[in-house]
Amino acid sequence: MESQSCSWSKIEGKNIPTTVELDPIIYKYTFSGCRILDIGCANGKVSIPLALHGYSVAGVDINTEVLSMAKSSCKSQNCLQIPLFAKGNATILPFADATFDVAVMQAFLTTVISKENRARIIREACRVLKPQGHLYIADFGQTWHSKIYRERYINDLAVTKEEGSFLAYDQKTGELAYVAHHFTEKELVFLLIENGFEVEYFKNDEFVTRTGNQVNGFVVVGRKE
Amino acid sequence: MESQSCSWSKIEGKNIPTTVELDPIIYKYTFSGCRILDIGCANGKVSIPLALHGYSVAGVDINTEVLSMAKSSCKSQNCLQIPLFAKGNATILPFADATFDVAVMQAFLTTVISKENRARIIREACRVLKPQGHLYIADFGQTWHSKIYRERYINDLAVTKEEGSFLAYDQKTGELAYVAHHFTEKELVFLLIENGFEVEYFKNDEFVTRTGNQVNGFVVVGRKE
Repeated sequence: MESQSCSWSKIEGKNIPTTVELDPIIYKYTFSGCRILDIGCANGKVSIPLALHGYSVAGVDINTEVLSMAKSSCKSQNCLQIPLFAKGNATILPFADATFDVAVMQAFLTTVISKENRARIIREACRVLKPQGHLYIADFGQTWHSKIYRERYINDLAVTKEEGSFLAYDQKTGELAYVAHHFTEKELVFLLIENGFEVEYFKNDEFVTRTGNQVNGFVVVGRKE
Repeated sequence: MESQSCSWSKIEGKNIPTTVELDPIIYKYTFSGCRILDIGCANGKVSIPLALHGYSVAGVDINTEVLSMAKSSCKSQNCLQIPLFAKGNATILPFADATFDVAVMQAFLTTVISKENRARIIREACRVLKPQGHLYIADFGQTWHSKIYRERYINDLAVTKEEGSFLAYDQKTGELAYVAHHFTEKELVFLLIENGFEVEYFKNDEFVTRTGNQVNGFVVVGRKE
């Protein structure tokens, strides 16, 4: 991400583990020979399974540490095609227009703090997709029925300035580890339709966070208009 | 509902059919001999199945026409206990404090136009419930991924003055038939916790509207604090 004035900008792009699995709906939009871009690929948790299916996969992440992890776990597996892992900023992707058939953002937007960057990222995904290409997004939903998350959204609002965002601390050191955002359906839908996509598929789901909490989740597929 | 200054107040309380079925989770909160209040009971679609289970059921609705329908469909079925159907305003229920073990609002709040009345209705349900009594709510959720509903919410906002509310017209006459509200999770949760309840159960669901559209839905159980 580009640098921001807010104090936690340094932690954006760090390795934020997640337990959200790739939803099988993605295979409705993939096909033999298709080219897939995994945006915010982290340790390759999504890129590698897609490569094992035989697809041509590129994974980008701003964090070189997780890219090394992705490369080494790739070596230990029997990929038909080795994914191309590259350092890259999701707001300025290092690819030409209309390169990919499918783009994937698996629990990635939750780590993007600013609304403006989220919009830039979706427009950039749109740019590198071919016409009628698909953008698959799986991400966390605001979970107001959970007292834990309700209180986090409310208590952290003074700092985050955005409803649904909250601060997560390192359990050992007590230091601020990262800021995350949970989306409303309206937010995710408008993020897509205002930045070049039509909503083609939408599912409410339940995800498990890295700390083991059950929260709302969305699986969304947008089609480039 | 009590009279309101808005122009559609006259249509509130009319017979608004729905296809939302009673969720089986309710039977986790009922028990032999329990007393159930069905608020906005309409034609008895919920009261009668509950009475067939042997529970002592009271159904209230402001609309006498639908109450007659409830009474006659009750006669044609073999209820162990005949529900008591009574005309009543959900904001001023004709029952003493702490009368019921369980209260039910099945696709009822969607028909209540004003936020203030919704809060009054929840407080009133709380009043007539026994301590630790349960309020079951099933209602429609805002469905932003549907282009049809997205456009209705946005286009009708100038008239309804509340996001998620929309106007429904009679398909034959073209006249305004009713105003309905679709909720956000946050709205429903705060409606409960600000008016005497803790959220005990929450489920995202998919409902079918009377016009056959698939929309988001919520099944929520609150516990009187």
